[in-house]
Amino acid sequence: MGNFFEDFSIGQKIIHPLPRTISEGDVSLYIAFTGSRFALHSSNEVAKQMGYDKRPIDDTLMFHLTFGKSVQDVSLNAIANLGYAEIAFPNPVYIGDTVSMTSDVIGLKENSNGKSGVVYVHSIGVNQNGDEVLNFKRWVMVHKKDKETSSGINEVPTFAKTTPILDKINLPEIKCVDTDSTGGKFFFEDYEAGERLNHPDGITVDNSDHTLATKLYQNNAKVHFNDHMMKSSPMGQRLMYGGIVISMARTLSFNGLQNAQNIYSINSGAHANPTYAGDTIYAYTEVLETIDHKREDLGLLRLRTIAVTNQKSSEIENPKGEDGKYLKNVVLDLDYTVVIPKKKTKK
Amino acid sequence: MGNFFEDFSIGQKIIHPLPRTISEGDVSLYIAFTGSRFALHSSNEVAKQMGYDKRPIDDTLMFHLTFGKSVQDVSLNAIANLGYAEIAFPNPVYIGDTVSMTSDVIGLKENSNGKSGVVYVHSIGVNQNGDEVLNFKRWVMVHKKDKETSSGINEVPTFAKTTPILDKINLPEIKCVDTDSTGGKFFFEDYEAGERLNHPDGITVDNSDHTLATKLYQNNAKVHFNDHMMKSSPMGQRLMYGGIVISMARTLSFNGLQNAQNIYSINSGAHANPTYAGDTIYAYTEVLETIDHKREDLGLLRLRTIAVTNQKSSEIENPKGEDGKYLKNVVLDLDYTVVIPKKKTKK
Amino acid sequence: MGNFFEDFSIGQKIIHPLPRTISEGDVSLYIAFTGSRFALHSSNEVAKQMGYDKRPIDDTLMFHLTFGKSVQDVSLNAIANLGYAEIAFPNPVYIGDTVSMTSDVIGLKENSNGKSGVVYVHSIGVNQNGDEVLNFKRWVMVHKKDKETSSGINEVPTFAKTTPILDKINLPEIKCVDTDSTGGKFFFEDYEAGERLNHPDGITVDNSDHTLATKLYQNNAKVHFNDHMMKSSPMGQRLMYGGIVISMARTLSFNGLQNAQNIYSINSGAHANPTYAGDTIYAYTEVLETIDHKREDLGLLRLRTIAVTNQKSSEIENPKGEDGKYLKNVVLDLDYTVVIPKKKTKK
Repeated sequence: MGNFFEDFSIGQKIIHPLPRTISEGDVSLYIAFTGSRFALHSSNEVAKQMGYDKRPIDDTLMFHLTFGKSVQDVSLNAIANLGYAEIAFPNPVYIGDTVSMTSDVIGLKENSNGKSGVVYVHSIGVNQNGDEVLNFKRWVMVHKKDKETSSGINEVPTFAKTTPILDKINLPEIKCVDTDSTGGKFFFEDYEAGERLNHPDGITVDNSDHTLATKLYQNNAKVHFNDHMMKSSPMGQRLMYGGIVISMARTLSFNGLQNAQNIYSINSGAHANPTYAGDTIYAYTEVLETIDHKREDLGLLRLRTIAVTNQKSSEIENPKGEDGKYLKNVVLDLDYTVVIPKKKTKK
Repeated sequence: MGNFFEDFSIGQKIIHPLPRTISEGDVSLYIAFTGSRFALHSSNEVAKQMGYDKRPIDDTLMFHLTFGKSVQDVSLNAIANLGYAEIAFPNPVYIGDTVSMTSDVIGLKENSNGKSGVVYVHSIGVNQNGDEVLNFKRWVMVHKKDKETSSGINEVPTFAKTTPILDKINLPEIKCVDTDSTGGKFFFEDYEAGERLNHPDGITVDNSDHTLATKLYQNNAKVHFNDHMMKSSPMGQRLMYGGIVISMARTLSFNGLQNAQNIYSINSGAHANPTYAGDTIYAYTEVLETIDHKREDLGLLRLRTIAVTNQKSSEIENPKGEDGKYLKNVVLDLDYTVVIPKKKTKK
Repeated sequence: MGNFFEDFSIGQKIIHPLPRTISEGDVSLYIAFTGSRFALHSSNEVAKQMGYDKRPIDDTLMFHLTFGKSVQDVSLNAIANLGYAEIAFPNPVYIGDTVSMTSDVIGLKENSNGKSGVVYVHSIGVNQNGDEVLNFKRWVMVHKKDKETSSGINEVPTFAKTTPILDKINLPEIKCVDTDSTGGKFFFEDYEAGERLNHPDGITVDNSDHTLATKLYQNNAKVHFNDHMMKSSPMGQRLMYGGIVISMARTLSFNGLQNAQNIYSINSGAHANPTYAGDTIYAYTEVLETIDHKREDLGLLRLRTIAVTNQKSSEIENPKGEDGKYLKNVVLDLDYTVVIPKKKTKK
């Protein structure tokens, strides 16, 4: 039931089971879970007008459906999900596509206590044609089977601080952005590094909301589902899947980033504190960098979105206190890059 | 973040963002939210037998998906949703259609206290071909920005008491109603003005039910979602979107009105009291009027459906007390008109 | 308002209303409700590789959607659902199919107290082409209208202990089972009668989960929905639809039975105790019998799955105590037969 440190070896390839066909039902459920309002994912007509054949899937939904596949093999019994790096969304995904995932073990480090170790994997998700749709690196701490014998293995890969931005972006040429449809007036040129957007809304997440979503993603990490088990854990209740918080933060960011409808990459992220049913999630976003691109129709914004619980995001000046630690109600610190059309596409 | 009284002017046209493609997922979710059993919307085979090419969307679902678009521009910060008039459903909507909405400002009235005013809009929803699918008038009370200066504006439109019934009804000719499929034996000729139908079922609505539905409709009025904010309001908790109650009342009315599968219009309605998670909704219906139509296959029934919470509808004689005010557990008083086939269509 | 004992007669045919078109939305919702991970139902690509044209619907979902239709006519006011026999799944069902159901009354037995009686029905579900998709016998106890007059009727049919297994199984020839996709390494030949599989996971079910599912199935038995009514019942709260427990047990059984993706029949079953919101469901499975078949690609396993609440299934040795009665937290004892490919199909 889940792998131990000794079950992994450098160069090992893991084919994660359960390819998943993405349907209209998944898309509607995602809107019901989040209230997401990005027009590109809500309307075939908007997608066609922009230059797509049909509406692509929200990148965050695709991430959850694809990522969920790796839980069983990599992190089912993880002591901790330590980090992510270089998450890229190389190609858009559409209704009817089937996504699947494989992982290569790229690093192993035994902890000095001899009881556990860190496993580094490089995971690649593809669609039914073999096109890459998700590509990321991830490291988790897992138990050792044999806590007495030490291997001394210490092969740690290095990661880029941000996911590299390629010359070729596999999105159709954006022909037209109708701001009456997207609900947002701002384009690439309107944003400046250093600016901060306080997203005004807050959304409360209940137990059925987060468990239905996590089950839809076929993510079977037991901490999210098994209240009987969790009642006797220090948390005392089911823990919300961190991806739910990412989805909520992304949804809240609509207010100010309406035209940033595609995620290009996630550079890094921290689930600073756990989130539980009943929490109301708020978020704000800092523009870290505006990144021009040789494509004439679009540019990129590197963003930092902070999600907090049970407090208006405008009331948070800094997510960390004077001691350098996250405030207790900061639940996400996400560094990611979005695609946003340039003004010339404006209708 | 929402418009103030001064942001509106007579004749102004508002294009509401976020056209929405309606999918099979939306239809399944609607059945999950309500338990709706109208056969026309549940079965392609029944729809074809009746004379449709395929099953149309439940009119109430279409209303929510289209109406939700206007919240951001018209009523996000409304002090109160005062009323609706002349709501019409001019054409059926099908899976795959994309609906969008515009509103014209048709009236403005500053309140005598100078602090707020009433905005009257005429909203029209269309499908991707420009065919009207929803048409209604609505008025809301909004804050003024400048509470010191008075404009004295007082242009109030007048409304018909009931939505006019047109000679042409854009529904296919009803070829056949198989009562074994619809579950209902009664046709237009079987109903009489003055009769009352006590719908026996009661359905409890929980927090996840109503918030998932309202998020699916992309209705972003914060009172429905933000428990943290609502805890410090006089209500002390999230308020259920009034449309949920309309959907529940309509679903409960199946028991007695199985063959009244299309809504022609909503003439007027009052959300008499707020509804909260945990409430069990019951309903009864009075037949106000039977309206013959030149079409030989169908007639119309003007109905008044009363929804109450936590009490069997049969125990309510009058929704208002001796003081003329609604009883505390009456949550909806809806005057609407449905289409119902005539006996000649019976199989 | 539900039928009474006197409303039934031997040989009577009941056409249950509300044919239901099964959509992608239903399939996604089923995954969200259960977290089901059987690859055949999740992926068109896996289904094609196995030999199907496209992914079939999970048999348990199909059962709920079809069975739900009979509640109104047969068991709306049942005193008790006494039993099921010879449940067969004669043909697979696909997205887009429309299922409907009829029942024949095959037995009637008045109880000696004169106040109630048992009705036995044989129910057959078909798709839009008239192919049988569900076939079962069922008996329920219902009230008499006239408690003073006795008919003395006592016609009780007999049932096979297990659903007969036919020479012809209407599944495509299984061309290939890719264990990397299904996540399971075990085939027909790997199982032995008498072996026991403790499924390690537990899943908690909340109020919105089970009521949304039961409403999706258009099962309108009021005990599941009406909290106001149930609060004054001995149970004090809404009762979970027994089918939810069957679905959860089937989903949990994935862990150990990954390649047993089709249900052939349900031989018998007992809902040993009621289940309520907040309960965490665990399950274990005993292999009762391995049944070879003349088909070279597949065999069958007769299984007994026991579901329990709020206790790990591995801690339960026997579902019944020394008094021969079910333990208080045993909620399902299901005897059913699944189809499982033989080793020759392994990729």
